[in-house]
Amino acid sequence: MHIELTREFLDELRDNIEKKDKQAAHKMIQNLHPADIAELYGELDIEEAKFIYLMLDKVVAADVLIEMEEAEREEFLKVLSGKTIARQFINEMDSDDAADIIGVLSEKKQQEVLSNIADVEQAGDIVDLLGYDEDSAGGLMAKELIKVNENWNMVQCIREMRKQAAEVDEIYYVYAVTDDDILKGTVSLKRMLLSRPNSIVKNICNENVISVRTDTPSEEVAVIMNKYDLVVLPVIDQIGRLVGRITIDDVVDVMKEEAEKDYQLISGITEDVEPSDKIFLLTRARIPWLFIGLCGGILGARVISIFEKDIMIDPHMAFFIPLIAAMAGNVGVQSSAIVVQSIASNALDLQSTWKKLVKELSVAFINGFILAGLLLIYNLLFTDSLALTVSVSAALFSVIIFASVFGTFIPMMLDRFKIDPALATGPFITTINDITGLLIYLGIARMFYGIF
Amino acid sequence: MHIELTREFLDELRDNIEKKDKQAAHKMIQNLHPADIAELYGELDIEEAKFIYLMLDKVVAADVLIEMEEAEREEFLKVLSGKTIARQFINEMDSDDAADIIGVLSEKKQQEVLSNIADVEQAGDIVDLLGYDEDSAGGLMAKELIKVNENWNMVQCIREMRKQAAEVDEIYYVYAVTDDDILKGTVSLKRMLLSRPNSIVKNICNENVISVRTDTPSEEVAVIMNKYDLVVLPVIDQIGRLVGRITIDDVVDVMKEEAEKDYQLISGITEDVEPSDKIFLLTRARIPWLFIGLCGGILGARVISIFEKDIMIDPHMAFFIPLIAAMAGNVGVQSSAIVVQSIASNALDLQSTWKKLVKELSVAFINGFILAGLLLIYNLLFTDSLALTVSVSAALFSVIIFASVFGTFIPMMLDRFKIDPALATGPFITTINDITGLLIYLGIARMFYGIF
Repeated sequence: MHIELTREFLDELRDNIEKKDKQAAHKMIQNLHPADIAELYGELDIEEAKFIYLMLDKVVAADVLIEMEEAEREEFLKVLSGKTIARQFINEMDSDDAADIIGVLSEKKQQEVLSNIADVEQAGDIVDLLGYDEDSAGGLMAKELIKVNENWNMVQCIREMRKQAAEVDEIYYVYAVTDDDILKGTVSLKRMLLSRPNSIVKNICNENVISVRTDTPSEEVAVIMNKYDLVVLPVIDQIGRLVGRITIDDVVDVMKEEAEKDYQLISGITEDVEPSDKIFLLTRARIPWLFIGLCGGILGARVISIFEKDIMIDPHMAFFIPLIAAMAGNVGVQSSAIVVQSIASNALDLQSTWKKLVKELSVAFINGFILAGLLLIYNLLFTDSLALTVSVSAALFSVIIFASVFGTFIPMMLDRFKIDPALATGPFITTINDITGLLIYLGIARMFYGIF
Repeated sequence: MHIELTREFLDELRDNIEKKDKQAAHKMIQNLHPADIAELYGELDIEEAKFIYLMLDKVVAADVLIEMEEAEREEFLKVLSGKTIARQFINEMDSDDAADIIGVLSEKKQQEVLSNIADVEQAGDIVDLLGYDEDSAGGLMAKELIKVNENWNMVQCIREMRKQAAEVDEIYYVYAVTDDDILKGTVSLKRMLLSRPNSIVKNICNENVISVRTDTPSEEVAVIMNKYDLVVLPVIDQIGRLVGRITIDDVVDVMKEEAEKDYQLISGITEDVEPSDKIFLLTRARIPWLFIGLCGGILGARVISIFEKDIMIDPHMAFFIPLIAAMAGNVGVQSSAIVVQSIASNALDLQSTWKKLVKELSVAFINGFILAGLLLIYNLLFTDSLALTVSVSAALFSVIIFASVFGTFIPMMLDRFKIDPALATGPFITTINDITGLLIYLGIARMFYGIF
């Protein structure tokens, strides 16, 4: 069963740790899932965590390490020798988890860990995996899988499974390969259980198998597994040889990270932070975009200063500055968000850029017409100056058109140049649209005040 | 293999449809995955889609229907009779997919479909599932699973699997239950393959099984499956009887929807839209928040009008209006985004509300100090009025403090009252902070102009 960690549970555990009551502490954690213990670690200080860690068995301890938050894990590994890491943890891990953990260590410590891994084959697998780009299928995959020759029968397959079963945790499929290791198909365990012992792999395997290459980007892997509802995806090399498999849990993490990153970018946060993080971290994550906002604001002040005389003639003109700036920002963020989401979901994209811009323009035109109309009615009722009334609505209309085109165009451009389009959302779009909005508004106002 | 749908492919297919060349069209789609065909449907008009649909075999056609976008599917089902839907599609589906599809039909059509389902047991399962809340484990689960008695041996288990295998697509585990259907544990297929024929389920099953109840909310299901890296999760009723199972692909969809909804709320979009949607839909999704922004802007204009005389005395005061408003908005969105994300990820939350606010205040204090300091230096160098210089920096500092407290507090409040905290992000926070920021700024300015 999974538990909900409560303050009471944590207090009691801490109490037991303080009293050095190993038995009581062990009783509390013995039935916890490694993911729960990892969560506990986040709340304990390093000495308390060490106390708990020492009472875990090797397999659980390795799983806990995998489940820990990256920052906490790094801190934890710092106090351990390369030998301890290799012997206590890595031995019990799948190659992909091991590579993830070793990958963040210093060059020197990596060497130390690798040279202390008892199983040379495992060490070789890890070195192979470390060679792949983190954000590619190669970086996501594990080497552990059950490979069977396409000419084998079920008895041979089960014999092979028995041999490898200790190494491979979860098995849902076995992979059929040729003598040259070329991937030919998959056999589900269900199929194996229901086939006759003398059935030949070749005759029962599903040959219509979806696979990716080691250099397929992680985001594409996520899209494929999600689209085709796969729980495991085989990975092949350039000539079609089977080299690994990716499981859905790793891909769910990729999807979550992607979504969180986009969310943070649109809200002006540069790093993955949580309310429980240290104040310094929370500050550092936020100040860069605020600084850009500040510069934008100063630039905005400069823009308004160009129109100082106009404002002196009618200070009412200043009243609508925040309205125009806010609307420019809102419209820009909406437009860019839609583009970013559709790129992220890799939605079927057969419309030309030109067609998209035309459509975006139509939406902006309707929104602008309605909102500028409403504002016109308001000002006709409550504002004396006709010049101001006309200026504000004309400006709002123009600003909505500009901001939505700009908000659509910039992320599309970034994507074309292989830059993350989400960079264009949030404070970036808002700030630029603010300034342009001011220029448009005050420019139009000057014009209309000249006419009326 | 999966394909990338290209404009060329689509044009060629359309060509074949127009020429009524069944053979050529069939050749093009025969090896496509149902998910790809569903994507194709989105690009075809209803007549073209019908032409393609008629050449699919029943099982594929049912899968295509499941994979289609909800809006397209509803349109497609409108033109079919209840009888056709039941006989052509529902018969080939898992109960959860069938319930999802039937659930959106009109009361009358639901009745028509249900009464035309040939298999009474399947119809019963679907009726059961329709009774659960859409956003609960019951609404996510499928009834199809392999249940074995804890006292059976492997031979009996495999016999049971053979019997049910046609109904259950993907099997990764079988579930061990008591005579009363109470869930006792799971047996992985790997374990089954590697056990002796006379092994008893009770002795080889994993009893430490994580399960949820039918009334567990979907978001909690997603958190649990993600945290414990599960591909399938059994669902039990109030007294522990096994009633269904949830597979990871359905949960991935829940997670994606949650993330997209939060993203849309923070960017001021009220519905799930894509650039390829109709102009009317795109407009309707955006105008509500823009309207709120407009009202906020008008309110902002009213606030400034209170200070009309002050601005007439020094129009420079108006220069920094956009800076203050923009910073208030940015800081507010940052703060609320962090809260929303931590609530969404269900991060271990042992800090008191009070402690969180104090921390948020500290971060705001540091950010405010740095940014107001920078602005002070800028204004000392480039602005003549000391009153303005001091006012602007004091106001920026105060606004940052206020906006971050407000941005933290509101989503936390909403969550306490069981309202989606993400509602507080984006345009909502921005608009309120804009107005309050203006009040603070102009109020402080009036005070300092009185002093200097």
